[in-house]
Amino acid sequence: MNELDKKALEYHREHKGKIGTSLLAPLDGKPDLSLAYSPGVGAVSLAISEDINLAREMTLKGRTVAIISDGSAILGLGNLGAEPAIPVMEGKAALLKHFADVDAFPICLNTQDPDEIINIVQNIAPVFGAINLEDISAPRCFYIEQTLREKLNIPVMHDDQWGTATVVLAGLINSLKLKNLNLVDARIVISGLGSAGVAVARLLFSAGAQYISFIDSQGIVNKNRIDLNKEKIELIEKSKLNPNDGNLADAVIGMDVFIGLSKPGVLTANMISSMNPNPIIFALANPTPEIMPDIAKQSGAYIVATGRSDFPNQVNNALVFPGIFKAALSVHGCQFTDEVFINCAHALANIVTDPTVDYIIPSPFDENVVPAIYNSAREVFLKQVNK
Amino acid sequence: MNELDKKALEYHREHKGKIGTSLLAPLDGKPDLSLAYSPGVGAVSLAISEDINLAREMTLKGRTVAIISDGSAILGLGNLGAEPAIPVMEGKAALLKHFADVDAFPICLNTQDPDEIINIVQNIAPVFGAINLEDISAPRCFYIEQTLREKLNIPVMHDDQWGTATVVLAGLINSLKLKNLNLVDARIVISGLGSAGVAVARLLFSAGAQYISFIDSQGIVNKNRIDLNKEKIELIEKSKLNPNDGNLADAVIGMDVFIGLSKPGVLTANMISSMNPNPIIFALANPTPEIMPDIAKQSGAYIVATGRSDFPNQVNNALVFPGIFKAALSVHGCQFTDEVFINCAHALANIVTDPTVDYIIPSPFDENVVPAIYNSAREVFLKQVNK
Repeated sequence: MNELDKKALEYHREHKGKIGTSLLAPLDGKPDLSLAYSPGVGAVSLAISEDINLAREMTLKGRTVAIISDGSAILGLGNLGAEPAIPVMEGKAALLKHFADVDAFPICLNTQDPDEIINIVQNIAPVFGAINLEDISAPRCFYIEQTLREKLNIPVMHDDQWGTATVVLAGLINSLKLKNLNLVDARIVISGLGSAGVAVARLLFSAGAQYISFIDSQGIVNKNRIDLNKEKIELIEKSKLNPNDGNLADAVIGMDVFIGLSKPGVLTANMISSMNPNPIIFALANPTPEIMPDIAKQSGAYIVATGRSDFPNQVNNALVFPGIFKAALSVHGCQFTDEVFINCAHALANIVTDPTVDYIIPSPFDENVVPAIYNSAREVFLKQVNK
Repeated sequence: MNELDKKALEYHREHKGKIGTSLLAPLDGKPDLSLAYSPGVGAVSLAISEDINLAREMTLKGRTVAIISDGSAILGLGNLGAEPAIPVMEGKAALLKHFADVDAFPICLNTQDPDEIINIVQNIAPVFGAINLEDISAPRCFYIEQTLREKLNIPVMHDDQWGTATVVLAGLINSLKLKNLNLVDARIVISGLGSAGVAVARLLFSAGAQYISFIDSQGIVNKNRIDLNKEKIELIEKSKLNPNDGNLADAVIGMDVFIGLSKPGVLTANMISSMNPNPIIFALANPTPEIMPDIAKQSGAYIVATGRSDFPNQVNNALVFPGIFKAALSVHGCQFTDEVFINCAHALANIVTDPTVDYIIPSPFDENVVPAIYNSAREVFLKQVNK
């Protein structure tokens, strides 16, 4: 066990986890007690039964995000189930509090049946103002997110998809600016079509990209393949590229951008040499990237981003979810859309006023991040409800 | 709308509810972030996947109670549904924090189907250390509580039943002491066989009472009745009384104790006069008792208790649930039983060292209450797991 892991175990044992509850209203004697609880609270219950929207104003509902996981795809560790998911979801709740002063509570489910998950989330939704799905494996996550958006009247976002996609788009905006290349012209290969890979592709298309090819565990994704799920079929239909069968080495030839959301070490120095000059490499597999940054640079990479904090250009979805959920809670009746994520990506990119090859994305500790995400998301949410 | 109700609405609007989350561990820079969240948190997930019990030590699970309601029996207001239940459940969470420093989170359900409720609670249980069921109507609540105790490996308690029953037993212990009457000899009538009435009866039998008769909305509960649910049949089979058909006026004749968990105003001055001398009257309907204390006293009542804070002898389940859940979280593998509640009732009664007719039950703000409940419950829980 490495030093970081040892420290992490100690940290969790010492504090017995990371979040607890706190009182927001005084409870200093019988008069307070009779307001907060029986009998006074009865008037609040009656008021809400007459106007259900008052629950947002008079209870935690208006302030609180559910962080929901079935533990089927925990970090890069795989399907470990409900209890092992708790420290990750509690961590997200801690980050939401720390970075954006948003209250959030983790719910880790004993079931991995998509329809049962949907049913449970519907049934526990009354107490929450927004739903953050997390660490749910693909392609189940697409169906669960889409169905919940249709069935619930609160915003729903699977952060592994859209948090990642938004930061990737932000980093790509600044990278392409440095390369003087437009997104509509960029030739992009995406390696890995799990939840994040699919969402990154969808968002890049939505933002104007046209030339994207895809690699999954079976090789190049194209029309010859008979094993494709509907998300993959949708993606190759959107692309202006129409590649032949092949592997990653074939796929990267002549491309400008590599985005890896796949496996450690799959990208080699030779592959980078076969790309267009000065390629952009986002090697986002965690904790070990598709190629280590020093080797990528030696092979001609112009910009390298990873998922790690110990290299420059960390693609970290903690940049997005605190501010975007704060915004979602602030606008009654809003929903997450591509427009929200694209607006946030531009705001995130713009925080870096003077991008360099080693600084395309701000740090989550940059105080400008949460306000920028909050304002840019809120702008789109307000347009939605004022239509 | 009365002044208290107006103030309660203002209190909730001003604070936007009553509980939020708080950080228990530092998050002051990238090193902390890498412990609390990715990548360090992965070691915690892996450790829990190897030993599921570590979730109690390293996450909020070991500290956190779920407060679960379907809104089918909110206070005395009836079946208002999920959202109107939120302020009550959030209030319980606030009281758990304030009185016992226990973290608790309200879950208000969109369904009132007992099996669906059981299924949902099973599926969200991983993140909780104990389950507090609340404001779920009878007789559904009995089935739900019993089934969850069988299916879950964490303690489950329906507070409307057992919190109330424990405080009633505590008050009765001190009342009978003042009257110099033993519980085994006391002739008791219970009016109202909802969740609290049934639990009070069960706990009194379990504590030694023998002579209890029952009144529900259809009159005296006896073997002639063909409309009885299994809980009522169980209760009359346990009693040494075998009353004829009749109404409340018939039932109270010659009784020592009236315990009302029924409806405002059903007990009259004449009825009290027909009881044995110096009767004990627990008129617990909320907010308006079965008889007002002054009228009861004028009619010969020796001791009067109500559910209200503006009269002496308030039967308030806030006396029990903070300490008893704190104890339940502290003993891995424990379960709520009659023995736990009876031990707590004696401890609660003993806090009043010198009981009088106007002081049979301590105040929830008495600093001795939570430690006394905690220690007496924990004593029984430890016996359970050390067997």
